[in-house]
Amino acid sequence: MLPLPPVLDRLDRNLDHSVERLFGLLRIKSISTDPAYASECRRAAEWLVADLTSIGFDASVRDTPGHPMVVAHHDGPTPDAPHVLFYGHYDVQPVDPLELWESDPFDPALKDIGAGRKIITGRGSSDDKGQLMLFVEACRAYKEVHGKLPCKVSILFEGEEESGSASLKPFLEANAAELKADFAMVCDTSMWDRETPALCIGLRGLVGEEITVHAADRDLHSGEFGGAAANPIRILAKVLADMHDETGRVTIPGFYEGVEETPSQILKSWEALGETAESFLGEVGLSIPSGEKGRSVLELTWARPTCEFNGITGGYTGKGFKTVIASQASAKVSCRLVHKQDPQKIREALRAFVRERIPADCSVEFDEHGGSPAIQLSYDAPFLTKAKTALSDEWGKPAVMIAMGGSIPIVGDFQNYLGMESLLAGFALVDDRIHSPNEKYDLSSFHKGQRSWARILDALTR
Amino acid sequence: MLPLPPVLDRLDRNLDHSVERLFGLLRIKSISTDPAYASECRRAAEWLVADLTSIGFDASVRDTPGHPMVVAHHDGPTPDAPHVLFYGHYDVQPVDPLELWESDPFDPALKDIGAGRKIITGRGSSDDKGQLMLFVEACRAYKEVHGKLPCKVSILFEGEEESGSASLKPFLEANAAELKADFAMVCDTSMWDRETPALCIGLRGLVGEEITVHAADRDLHSGEFGGAAANPIRILAKVLADMHDETGRVTIPGFYEGVEETPSQILKSWEALGETAESFLGEVGLSIPSGEKGRSVLELTWARPTCEFNGITGGYTGKGFKTVIASQASAKVSCRLVHKQDPQKIREALRAFVRERIPADCSVEFDEHGGSPAIQLSYDAPFLTKAKTALSDEWGKPAVMIAMGGSIPIVGDFQNYLGMESLLAGFALVDDRIHSPNEKYDLSSFHKGQRSWARILDALTR
Repeated sequence: MLPLPPVLDRLDRNLDHSVERLFGLLRIKSISTDPAYASECRRAAEWLVADLTSIGFDASVRDTPGHPMVVAHHDGPTPDAPHVLFYGHYDVQPVDPLELWESDPFDPALKDIGAGRKIITGRGSSDDKGQLMLFVEACRAYKEVHGKLPCKVSILFEGEEESGSASLKPFLEANAAELKADFAMVCDTSMWDRETPALCIGLRGLVGEEITVHAADRDLHSGEFGGAAANPIRILAKVLADMHDETGRVTIPGFYEGVEETPSQILKSWEALGETAESFLGEVGLSIPSGEKGRSVLELTWARPTCEFNGITGGYTGKGFKTVIASQASAKVSCRLVHKQDPQKIREALRAFVRERIPADCSVEFDEHGGSPAIQLSYDAPFLTKAKTALSDEWGKPAVMIAMGGSIPIVGDFQNYLGMESLLAGFALVDDRIHSPNEKYDLSSFHKGQRSWARILDALTR
Repeated sequence: MLPLPPVLDRLDRNLDHSVERLFGLLRIKSISTDPAYASECRRAAEWLVADLTSIGFDASVRDTPGHPMVVAHHDGPTPDAPHVLFYGHYDVQPVDPLELWESDPFDPALKDIGAGRKIITGRGSSDDKGQLMLFVEACRAYKEVHGKLPCKVSILFEGEEESGSASLKPFLEANAAELKADFAMVCDTSMWDRETPALCIGLRGLVGEEITVHAADRDLHSGEFGGAAANPIRILAKVLADMHDETGRVTIPGFYEGVEETPSQILKSWEALGETAESFLGEVGLSIPSGEKGRSVLELTWARPTCEFNGITGGYTGKGFKTVIASQASAKVSCRLVHKQDPQKIREALRAFVRERIPADCSVEFDEHGGSPAIQLSYDAPFLTKAKTALSDEWGKPAVMIAMGGSIPIVGDFQNYLGMESLLAGFALVDDRIHSPNEKYDLSSFHKGQRSWARILDALTR
């Protein structure tokens, strides 16, 4: 057994240095969705390999057809110590609209926002560079204090999480023997609130699809052809408008196949968390749930499927006005899936629904953008109980079992390819503005998150 | 009387030079809708003033709060000669999407496209630089042959026709005495087909409006908030989809107020032109009329109002995918008006229709982009009869009386501010791709159009 208190003490004393290290990683513009930033993605991977190597990991950049993986291994103190695989991703979301950022998204800073609260600003500060560095810092402290880690630790950092993870499955398959551990630890999740740590037991799946409606073979003058020629924006608007009924329910036939009603005792435990439509949506300037009527916002975002429109474009979108009828219009649509919904069936149902609504003289084209089923973890895994105790010890409040609205496809992939369950613990906050301008990570998340992972590693050995 | 044949002969012999001059004007990137091209607009105005001055006009660039006007005057042969005001516009539409152009839109060229047909390529070659230069060339020939013009001629060239003509009305009001003539000649119209000249007696009006729906105060992660937070693209799609019923009729309350049924003899004369949905829409790869069922494409585009969506944008529209719920989405909408529809009432009805469909926790913002009523000219004006004869003489086929789907707001402004009717004659063809990539103007339009204006000037003196 490696005593925990000096490790926690080391993390406290080294906080400033750990922030500086995180800044180094945040300065790298590793936007995976835009090919222009490919070399920056590689640079982030190399940065991580260098850092992990410096604390004794056997770490390497592993090429893929897309952005590279980082894989690292470190022995445990004894051959029979638990073996965990820690997963995070070093890629980040695009930063547009850039003009809404209060400071350069790739020039991180520490800001005092009053009330004793400090934040780390920058793209990736929360999602996911800040979160993954927590674990690296916990390992560093163990190594500096004890010269060893309490468990055998493998690490997998991905560079395509924000762009569909095309290389991930082949990589897991090809390297299954190397990556298989007792279970995985995935750090992409959030606290319940600033005081309450959380473990996530449910994750929505995702089907992403781009729909492009083609009408005339060129852009037309709306005076000359308006009233006669098909308008692809009008067709697309009708298709999208038809996808929900007036109660907020998705109208695509077969969409709700595999969706289960959440047990009432679970719904009650979520009610007890005290979240209301006003509190949940008030954070972002809204107040009225847009989903199926009669369900709480937690149920809507944790246990109900959605069909959301993530982008739309067609015709003239510049300054001023252009009296044009466009030749095409397109929308990016994503469905969040729950329980046993089948991504492939949902994609086919969506496409059939769209095709039915395209006039005979027009056409539609689909581009697939990723798909993964939902995840429902078991409540009673031993590693979950141990981690719950560790988190409750650190935060002085019992950790809560929650679900999450976002997809973390890796959790399903670990199940499918490596036969591993995952522990999902993270320290992000709802106001971190991940995927939005002015992303941040609380300094307290960064500090107590490091301590939390140190405690979890310790708890797993007991 | 100034003999006509030597003028026509001069135009024939000088065709090559007139093409070169047009190229000079086409090379100027006078895109009025984009402020970045303001200096190019001024350069086009200066180019025209220099050219008009060179053939004896008293011409000047006249500043406005927007792009400048060109005003020029030339005496008639006698004080009692007719006085006409010729109107055109030197500004052009934006050129995006640039990648669809087969050659640089601002590097005009003469191309042989086979079957004895040559075309002039480039942005503005048809709309409206090519069309306005016809008249300048006709005047040049008169001056070179006879040293004088057959009528008193004033010229007004505008630089904001493609961007809402904000400066036009104040300019007409302020310079009414200088610009008032017996009638106006407006050159922004088309031939019926390549053999048949046309005079236009009806023009649709226009109401342009930009609708921006605001939801959350920032972009949101669609996993975290999807199913709970209002999605502005979904709201906007529903608003737009609601604007037409299944028969293609516009559903905005009060929209059809002031719309008259076209007299059956007029509809019959249009039927006699032999245009079908297949022939009209087949040109652009379509076949099914999108407007009100049971009406011909000519009635739909000439005598029925529309509500068209010219542009839409919201959320992530770049490459790849971003699982975001946008904070806002917007659409550019334009209504084509006919008969006695009131632009201001239509705008208000449109706004009320949209507002009713915005959830209580969201908001909507409107930006006005121009408005003008429809024009219905009298069939029996003497200048119309004379021009009809002149055109029939040039083309060897009777000129037809048609309507037009596009707006030419100047015609209403001439009525309102200068008390003048307008003669609408132009030589564009339906396949000129105005407002689209690869705009062109037939060399035969350019040649016989010059001769046509020379004949019209001559006919007016008889």
